[in-house]
Amino acid sequence: MGQKSSLVIIGNEILSGRTQDSNTRYIADKMGAHGVPLAEVRVVPDIEVKIIEAVNALRAQYDYVFTTGGIGPTHDDITAESVAKALGVEFERHEGAYKDLLDYYGPDDLTDARASMAMMPKGAELLPNPVSGAPGFFIENVYVMAGVPKIMQAMLAHVIDTVAPGEPILSNTITCNVPESQVADEIGQLELQYEGLEIGSYPHFRSGSLGVSLVLRSTKAEVLRPATQAVLALIEHKDGVVQALGLAVPID
Amino acid sequence: MGQKSSLVIIGNEILSGRTQDSNTRYIADKMGAHGVPLAEVRVVPDIEVKIIEAVNALRAQYDYVFTTGGIGPTHDDITAESVAKALGVEFERHEGAYKDLLDYYGPDDLTDARASMAMMPKGAELLPNPVSGAPGFFIENVYVMAGVPKIMQAMLAHVIDTVAPGEPILSNTITCNVPESQVADEIGQLELQYEGLEIGSYPHFRSGSLGVSLVLRSTKAEVLRPATQAVLALIEHKDGVVQALGLAVPID
Repeated sequence: MGQKSSLVIIGNEILSGRTQDSNTRYIADKMGAHGVPLAEVRVVPDIEVKIIEAVNALRAQYDYVFTTGGIGPTHDDITAESVAKALGVEFERHEGAYKDLLDYYGPDDLTDARASMAMMPKGAELLPNPVSGAPGFFIENVYVMAGVPKIMQAMLAHVIDTVAPGEPILSNTITCNVPESQVADEIGQLELQYEGLEIGSYPHFRSGSLGVSLVLRSTKAEVLRPATQAVLALIEHKDGVVQALGLAVPID
Repeated sequence: MGQKSSLVIIGNEILSGRTQDSNTRYIADKMGAHGVPLAEVRVVPDIEVKIIEAVNALRAQYDYVFTTGGIGPTHDDITAESVAKALGVEFERHEGAYKDLLDYYGPDDLTDARASMAMMPKGAELLPNPVSGAPGFFIENVYVMAGVPKIMQAMLAHVIDTVAPGEPILSNTITCNVPESQVADEIGQLELQYEGLEIGSYPHFRSGSLGVSLVLRSTKAEVLRPATQAVLALIEHKDGVVQALGLAVPID
């Protein structure tokens, strides 16, 4: 089945409804294209025991765990220490990170709060932060990134450099005006006819009528091509109208 | 600490990056206002064992578990059966749901796939679906809703009717141009001075400069008012400029 990744979002602001998360979709896109798709996400509050529980559950089940959020200088930034505890390693000053912070702020402005961002699990390697000086890090299969999307995205580019690519998943999407329940039986059967094919079925409700997007996913173009043709034939057979096509693998 | 809720999103489409989740924020908002805030979210794929694991982990830890997604008529809609297995109850036809579907589709158009949406854990009570006929349900502390936002929102209105309200959390937000690391120490100390006060610190990066939003949360107006004044005084002391104020509790 290939390698899989997972994500822990440390975010009271997501759980309170204050902030709309956008990191999940960004990471899902990039890691899917890299062939190491996201298989599970957990959003947990800034509570040490919850962070430890999520990191340990996911690092045991998946090849990679990413975290976002909680690596700034304030009292609620407890991700780095929680990860150290999850991994059972010491929590200490990373000299490279400290030097980066010293360069960024200068010796006079490197307050205790700012210097605390150099505290990391022993053995961590840095993920550079081009925006605000405070680096992320990785240790074993756990990658700790900032929560601010711009910074997270810069860090993820480095993460992707260190993670071996898998087979990218190709996907063809067909959106039509046929209600999901009218094609449900046939789509289930069709999925079983092709090895390594997954069909997702996502109903929508637009301007008063129901329709469905069918998303065919496989690592193999030679599977996706005939399966996509079969779905189009099914929609025609149901007198449906195709409303949108998103084809990673063209059908002819 | 009051009652807490949790959410399981059953969603390959979120994990693949195809769809931007918006249900989390909606539910977080509504449940926060109802005084039963969201304390954890898990996004899991359409895989039975993962759904069972998430539902059982969260229903043991929190007062309520909501699920979204996977209750349609297709082969990948396995939420209802997974919840029955998680709770160790039989999975059977709900006569009320079957009657609703019969009314909605009529006897000639109620295909096997459509009728499958009446299959629920034994003992489930219905959450009506005003859009597409297929109801959600609840059993014990597990509430199973559709993934389509419009339908989920209609179902959540019924959920809120059945869940006893808690003390709503009030929140005051102050956004300023002071870098987070310049106020970090003082904010941490300030939080400790007021009982039941939580201060979240959310850095941002806009048009080339850093700033921070400080979110003060408490169920008590008499805590929030002086704490908000103290934060404003701190920003002034740092020569900062307040860029935006969102005050549930006015300060004078």
